[in-house]
Amino acid sequence: MSVTWPAGFRAAGMAAGIKGAGEDLALVHCPRGPATAAAVATTNAFKAASLQLSLRHLRAGAARAVLLNSGNANAINGREGMAITRRIVDGLAAQLACPAGEILFASTGKIGLRLPEETITRALPELVGRLDADGNAAAARAIMTTDRVPKEVARETEIHGRRGPVRLGGMAKGAGMIRPEMATMICVLTTDAVIAPGPLAAALRAAVQESFNMLTVDDDQSTNDFVVVLASGAAANHHLKEGSSEFHCFQSHLADCCRALARAIAADGEGAGRMFTVRVSGAWSAGDARRIARRIAGSNLVKTMIAGNNPNWGRVLAAAGSCGARVRPARVALEICGQPVFAGGEALPFPEAALAEKMKAPEVTIDLDLGAGGHAAEAWGCDLTEDYVAINREYS
Amino acid sequence: MSVTWPAGFRAAGMAAGIKGAGEDLALVHCPRGPATAAAVATTNAFKAASLQLSLRHLRAGAARAVLLNSGNANAINGREGMAITRRIVDGLAAQLACPAGEILFASTGKIGLRLPEETITRALPELVGRLDADGNAAAARAIMTTDRVPKEVARETEIHGRRGPVRLGGMAKGAGMIRPEMATMICVLTTDAVIAPGPLAAALRAAVQESFNMLTVDDDQSTNDFVVVLASGAAANHHLKEGSSEFHCFQSHLADCCRALARAIAADGEGAGRMFTVRVSGAWSAGDARRIARRIAGSNLVKTMIAGNNPNWGRVLAAAGSCGARVRPARVALEICGQPVFAGGEALPFPEAALAEKMKAPEVTIDLDLGAGGHAAEAWGCDLTEDYVAINREYS
Repeated sequence: MSVTWPAGFRAAGMAAGIKGAGEDLALVHCPRGPATAAAVATTNAFKAASLQLSLRHLRAGAARAVLLNSGNANAINGREGMAITRRIVDGLAAQLACPAGEILFASTGKIGLRLPEETITRALPELVGRLDADGNAAAARAIMTTDRVPKEVARETEIHGRRGPVRLGGMAKGAGMIRPEMATMICVLTTDAVIAPGPLAAALRAAVQESFNMLTVDDDQSTNDFVVVLASGAAANHHLKEGSSEFHCFQSHLADCCRALARAIAADGEGAGRMFTVRVSGAWSAGDARRIARRIAGSNLVKTMIAGNNPNWGRVLAAAGSCGARVRPARVALEICGQPVFAGGEALPFPEAALAEKMKAPEVTIDLDLGAGGHAAEAWGCDLTEDYVAINREYS
Repeated sequence: MSVTWPAGFRAAGMAAGIKGAGEDLALVHCPRGPATAAAVATTNAFKAASLQLSLRHLRAGAARAVLLNSGNANAINGREGMAITRRIVDGLAAQLACPAGEILFASTGKIGLRLPEETITRALPELVGRLDADGNAAAARAIMTTDRVPKEVARETEIHGRRGPVRLGGMAKGAGMIRPEMATMICVLTTDAVIAPGPLAAALRAAVQESFNMLTVDDDQSTNDFVVVLASGAAANHHLKEGSSEFHCFQSHLADCCRALARAIAADGEGAGRMFTVRVSGAWSAGDARRIARRIAGSNLVKTMIAGNNPNWGRVLAAAGSCGARVRPARVALEICGQPVFAGGEALPFPEAALAEKMKAPEVTIDLDLGAGGHAAEAWGCDLTEDYVAINREYS
């Protein structure tokens, strides 16, 4: 269970024929009426048409359904691309008997390819017919591109003022850190909590800040990145007010869901053999900590070093020193997989072969203590391999 | 001829035994006395010891010699690393009979490895003995790491107020855009012009801005990047004053030298098969033009697209749209190898196979017209191949 785990949601996924084979069209639906909705999207100047329309619809803070397709990013397709997008959404709104303004749409796949309007429109009745509380797995599969595994999460939490728990669920796709085209990140989160649009948006922003924003750190920003959360209100809790302990509890569980999905994306990176976690502590500011953690996680040389089980700590420090954050070399301490390699401005002797062996673990850890202040951050990356190059040098 | 092309300079290169095999120690010397000197260096917090000492010596605006070694970056080696650096420079100063403060030192190679003090000190008398007007080629070879070819340049220009031309020369090393460790960029420029430290520094800053700064654009900033220019004054021209037409003439030739060397570095990128040039025009500001050109040149997905002869224009636009510069999709026009592929917000039909064939040229061009303002910029990159990964996953 993931997006259908909270009360009030159904989902479906099917093979509509957008990509060559496999499921490629998904729907998440809140049948009881429009859910409270909030989203975070890419800042790219070439936003996908699906995304542009969704952001317009999201101004109302409510949505009843999210349509998703893989195999085509529906980005940079000009005016006709936007017209096709509108017609598809209108068609779905008619099927679901709701206003078109309550439909969100997210696409992932190749840029600059017109959406196959007929193919999708023809599939919509069957997609709607398949909506089901067990449809989450098919939906999670239908948004995959170069992903090797579907990514789902489910959590629950007690909220003061009601008997049962409030539930959260989510699904995501994305197969690496660096890919605006074939593996763009998309995430749909659901909850049955009762919460107004403002607090929901605030909770999502905070959650994305410490999860997906610590993952997609490279130059290759997407035209399609989209994280959306829908709250059905079916849990009938008291409204979650910003600043309340109930809100903080909800926010922390939402962040937990996002972190789990972000880590799953890192582990499934394009061509990646392993993921790695960068923990920065002792920074002068939270911004410094975040900048350094992301810079290290996004460095091609650190990524190739992880691929080679290569305890080449100089690359980690060079990355840390390169992002304009305040760093005093003499105060810095560095550990790789728990092995201290640098402290007080000096390299430490360490058993290289043993550490290289340790680095073959499924998850490599890099712990950097700046010894300056009290701020910390965590980021996730994946190694850079020949397979990444092979995947991305191909045209289609 | 390169660094010894201007009057007043000698150079030498030799195999001192710092790296396994081949030349690894170089010297550029101005025997007539201290040359006017200016430099631009990496902003990395973990600056190499060689670089820290050089920057201190450069405060005087004068230098008599530049010592260079490859095979060891002399970076992040703690206090002892700096002590060794000082002793080596003191030793060379004694050999050259000049104050230690007139010696600059640049290192390139692996980070975190102590410099072999004995090896270098023992080699210094022979290095000084080899100083010669024909020593430029050996010096250019001695600073190579993963470079496949040495990089030298020579130019001359008429300066009003004297009979003969003023000469400029330069050598550089660096084998790609992304490499703080094994292929750090170093460049030594020489001229026989008479010029004061202030104007020389201004001319260098402007030249670097439109050359090396349009090349090293990725997250993996070096601990060792160093571009230095020495002016011997042997041409006996009138002092080049900032703002004069003679100064502009000199500055433009200096920039020309830097551009030639920057392009040579791009063409010799680690594991790279080809270089590519990104020309951005029609930007709202010079900053926007530079940011977009560098972002495209540094994008892993654009780099793999070049590797695959893959006219995947969506990646170029996604990179352009991702850097915060002002872009209006409907005004943008894009050409790859002279073939229009996008204009007015719409993809253009083009012969894919023919363009893929065209992209096999030694230099791919990407021309992006933003259709907004009058500013332009040019950047250079190289493709990203499996060989880059193979080179950088190895430990040593």
